[in-house]
Amino acid sequence: MILYVDANYLSPYAMSAFVALREKGLTFELHLLDLQKSEQSAPAYAEISSTQRVPAIVDDDFSLSESSAISEYIDECYIGPKLYPLDILSRARARALQAWLRSDLLSIREERSTEVVFLQRSPQPLSAKAQAAANKLFHAAAQLLQPGQLHLFEQWSIADTDLALMINRLVLAGDPVPEHLANYAALQWQRPSVQDWVNLARNIT
Amino acid sequence: MILYVDANYLSPYAMSAFVALREKGLTFELHLLDLQKSEQSAPAYAEISSTQRVPAIVDDDFSLSESSAISEYIDECYIGPKLYPLDILSRARARALQAWLRSDLLSIREERSTEVVFLQRSPQPLSAKAQAAANKLFHAAAQLLQPGQLHLFEQWSIADTDLALMINRLVLAGDPVPEHLANYAALQWQRPSVQDWVNLARNIT
Ligand SMILES: [Ca+2]
Ligand SMILES: [Ca+2]
Ligand SMILES: [Ca+2]
Ligand SMILES: [Ca+2]
Repeated sequence: MILYVDANYLSPYAMSAFVALREKGLTFELHLLDLQKSEQSAPAYAEISSTQRVPAIVDDDFSLSESSAISEYIDECYIGPKLYPLDILSRARARALQAWLRSDLLSIREERSTEVVFLQRSPQPLSAKAQAAANKLFHAAAQLLQPGQLHLFEQWSIADTDLALMINRLVLAGDPVPEHLANYAALQWQRPSVQDWVNLARNIT
Repeated sequence: MILYVDANYLSPYAMSAFVALREKGLTFELHLLDLQKSEQSAPAYAEISSTQRVPAIVDDDFSLSESSAISEYIDECYIGPKLYPLDILSRARARALQAWLRSDLLSIREERSTEVVFLQRSPQPLSAKAQAAANKLFHAAAQLLQPGQLHLFEQWSIADTDLALMINRLVLAGDPVPEHLANYAALQWQRPSVQDWVNLARNIT
C-alpha cells in the first residue's frame, strides 16, 4: 500500500487518508509530491491519480483518489477498527459531515490555511465572511457535540479527525471558539495517528 | 419522505438527490426553498439542515443533508435498484468521482452555472483557468469511459448523473467537448429521472 501526500504534509485531505490508514492499522509507504514543483502534474502521477490530486493510494494495482473515498474503501476492504460508524444513521451523518467540510466553509479554509495549523503561520483577523462561516461551523458542530462528548458518534470515526482539523484552524489562529468545541478538537488532536501526522518534519517555506 | 430543494431547481446537488430518490423508486414530497429570499437560513430549516444547505431529506424523523450522503443512505436503507456499484473497486471509484465533482472544477461551476444548463443562459467564453479545468475533466472522464460506453461502471450509478451534469455544463454552453463524452452525457440526460428534473417549471429571473 502506497499513500501519496504533499511533501509539506499540509493537505488536510492527505492528513485524513494518513489517519485512516493508521487507525486501520495498515502498513504503507508514504510517497511525497512537491506541489510547488507541480509534481502532481507529472505524467507518471496522472497514471495514479487521473485528477492529479493528493491524496491517492495505490493498493496492489488499484489506485484511488479523494480522501473520503479512500477511507470508505479501506473500511470496506480491511479488517480492523472501523473508520465509519456501524449505525446506519450515524454513518449517514458522518458522511454528510465529511462531504460538507470538503465543499463548504471555503473562506475558513482560505483565511485559516493549514499553514496556520501546522506551521504556526500568523493569520490576519477573520473577514466578516469567514466569521460567518465560523459561526456556521460552530452551530453545526454544536448540534452533534454536547459538552464533554468525546466523539461525534458512538466511537471514534474519521469524521472526528476531519472536524477537529476544521475547528483547530480557528483555535490555533487564536480565534474565539466555543470552549467545548475547542476541548473536543484538542482531545481529537492527541490521537496517536493524528500526532504522527502533526509531528512530520515540515520545511518552513 | 421529504426532499428539500431550491425553488428554481438549479442546485446540481438537489438534482442529484432527486434523481437518487426517483431511481430508487421512492415516493417523496418536494419542498421548495427560495434561496433568493434566504429561506434556507430560516430557523425552521436550520432544524432540518444544520448546515442550511440544499438538498436535505427528512425520512420520518431523520434529517440528512449533502447529496452524496443522501444517496448512500437511501442505497443502504431501501430496496430497489442500486445507486452505487456492487463491485468494491467500482464503488470506490464512484465515490471518488462524486467527491471530486463536488470539490474541484470550481471555475467550471462558476463560469458554466446550472443557469446555462437549465435556463439556456448564454455564457461568456471560458477563461483560461476554466478551460484548463475542462481539460482536466475530459482527461479524468476519458480514463473511465471508452467510446460507446453507456455507464461508468457495470450498471447505471448516481455517479453517471453527476458526471453527465458536469459535462453538460460545457456541452450546453456550446464549448468543444470530446464527442464520446458528449454522447455519453446526452444519453444519461435521457434517463426519465433526469428528464423529470430537467422538465420542472423554472421561473426565469
Ligand atoms: Ca494488498
Ligand atoms: Ca440505529
Ligand atoms: Ca419512512
Ligand atoms: Ca471486483
